[in-house]
Amino acid sequence: MREEFTSLDEFSTLLQNLPGPDEAARAAARARDAVLTKPPGALGQLEELAEWVAGWRGEARPEIRRPQVIVFAGNHGVTARGVSAFPAEVTAQMVLNFEAGGAAINQLARLNGARMDVVALSLDTPTADFTTGPAMSEAEVIEALQAGWNAVDETADLLVTGEMGIGNTTSAAAIAFALYGGEAADWTGAGTGVDASGILLKAQVVEEGLARNPEARGDGLKALQLLGGRELAAMAGAIARARVLRIPVILDGFICTAAAACLEVARPGALDHCVAGHMSAEAAHGALLGKLGKRPLLSLGMRLGEGSGAALAVGILKGALACHSGMSTFAEAGVSDG
Amino acid sequence: MREEFTSLDEFSTLLQNLPGPDEAARAAARARDAVLTKPPGALGQLEELAEWVAGWRGEARPEIRRPQVIVFAGNHGVTARGVSAFPAEVTAQMVLNFEAGGAAINQLARLNGARMDVVALSLDTPTADFTTGPAMSEAEVIEALQAGWNAVDETADLLVTGEMGIGNTTSAAAIAFALYGGEAADWTGAGTGVDASGILLKAQVVEEGLARNPEARGDGLKALQLLGGRELAAMAGAIARARVLRIPVILDGFICTAAAACLEVARPGALDHCVAGHMSAEAAHGALLGKLGKRPLLSLGMRLGEGSGAALAVGILKGALACHSGMSTFAEAGVSDG
Repeated sequence: MREEFTSLDEFSTLLQNLPGPDEAARAAARARDAVLTKPPGALGQLEELAEWVAGWRGEARPEIRRPQVIVFAGNHGVTARGVSAFPAEVTAQMVLNFEAGGAAINQLARLNGARMDVVALSLDTPTADFTTGPAMSEAEVIEALQAGWNAVDETADLLVTGEMGIGNTTSAAAIAFALYGGEAADWTGAGTGVDASGILLKAQVVEEGLARNPEARGDGLKALQLLGGRELAAMAGAIARARVLRIPVILDGFICTAAAACLEVARPGALDHCVAGHMSAEAAHGALLGKLGKRPLLSLGMRLGEGSGAALAVGILKGALACHSGMSTFAEAGVSDG
Repeated sequence: MREEFTSLDEFSTLLQNLPGPDEAARAAARARDAVLTKPPGALGQLEELAEWVAGWRGEARPEIRRPQVIVFAGNHGVTARGVSAFPAEVTAQMVLNFEAGGAAINQLARLNGARMDVVALSLDTPTADFTTGPAMSEAEVIEALQAGWNAVDETADLLVTGEMGIGNTTSAAAIAFALYGGEAADWTGAGTGVDASGILLKAQVVEEGLARNPEARGDGLKALQLLGGRELAAMAGAIARARVLRIPVILDGFICTAAAACLEVARPGALDHCVAGHMSAEAAHGALLGKLGKRPLLSLGMRLGEGSGAALAVGILKGALACHSGMSTFAEAGVSDG
């Protein structure tokens, strides 16, 4: 396969040239919505979702027939700092669990009829501890971006990107801190379940990480390289590829959103094809979604990662399109329109 | 069929003798949840939902295979007061639309694999205008309660009750005002889309309704009879029957919740087998859920009725059970448990 980018500069150029939605299809969907057998606006956000998908898919009556869930896994050198409640070997163990069909994401992908792919990224070679230097070289982050880019099924009509990587809430917090500033503690939470002193340690590690990698500040792609993990870069690559293919994306929780935010900072509007699937219980997710101007579809206190919240939200999107594309109009049904 | 109640007194006695959940099954579900391949608590509300269904179904690993959606339709004499944005004949027109498969609820029921039943309740005989007297006689409310009771499929494993009835947000507001007091305006909203002066009129009508039927105050079953509609009474009957059959119920929006509240006021705890499917955009729904201590699963600005919000939430419940019942344990998957 010819790679479409071989450096961060080339990837950045690609981001400046992303396609937009099909406004005619979107307008046609809006016109259809106005004559469906319901009071105007009565389906709330479902109406907005249907119009949004119509724009990206270029169809006035779209359906979701081929959703894809991709779970990317990576290991993190920063786990040496004791930032996680689970040992690093759990990343590889969970990859086997994904492959065997035993994880939460497997059940949710199956429930919503999604193809599920698992991409393990050099698990035996963790990223470097970003408190001692860059997490990845440019070659490494490009390889991870390409892995994400290439994992997207060109025939998919909806994408969920999920992740597994012990230590990756610390990486995501460092990225959010680099992109949006404030205090390190603003972006640091319990992850899989560290206690209050563990959270203080994570905030300290996040602060050290940005101090050691100051070029990450305010620079989406540099933040991804210097503070990210392979699975975060891969999610960013997949989300960018989906945009090129005009495939709508449902973002998952804090880590997925941090990866996506790198694209948005690199090119404002890069996430117009993305909707927030849920509000994670990870403390800083709400603030991060606020920075992106995204309102979550679900808020059920989930904080598992794997793409689980987004995969659950696939059902909401399917519901929106089932109504929009399947309902009768006032004229078809012989119903008075008020 | 032998009717299980023929008066409100008999129905009230029945409510005092409702069964509770199977605590052993619930405890077994909780124990299973603790060893699934995820950090403790990481599935948030999904974990609580799975345990709750386990208790009501009496199974540690329940699934939803036979959900049922029932849409009850009724007409309201109070529409003579000009409280709705749509003409009363829309109730019957929408029943035809439900039967033809063209409404939103048809699409959402199909998406989530639910059987859908439509029960039209004496549409040619609207309830009386409750500002001039009781909406229904005792015989009429009993007939509607029985219609709901008898509509529940004994083999269903999940129930959604929905409604259609031009004018029924006014009836629901009057019931909420009778049960919980405050000001009539606290319980009055835009319904299918009346303007600010229409909302003022509705509040006036609600106030007149309770003044004319003071026995409804604080009395769940009297409120249902004197201020309710046939479809509200039928929903209450179906929800009570589901409790007897230990079938969990997903409540829909403001009207469904007002009908359910009549049971809760008549017998505290009567809605322990119910979860709130969504928060409606109808203004008073949040306050009503607060009175019942119910936290909605979804909050998507929907305000259509028909059971649509609850039917969409069936997917959330299915997701909760898919994870709970389908995931591997740490031991099965060979994953370290932290």
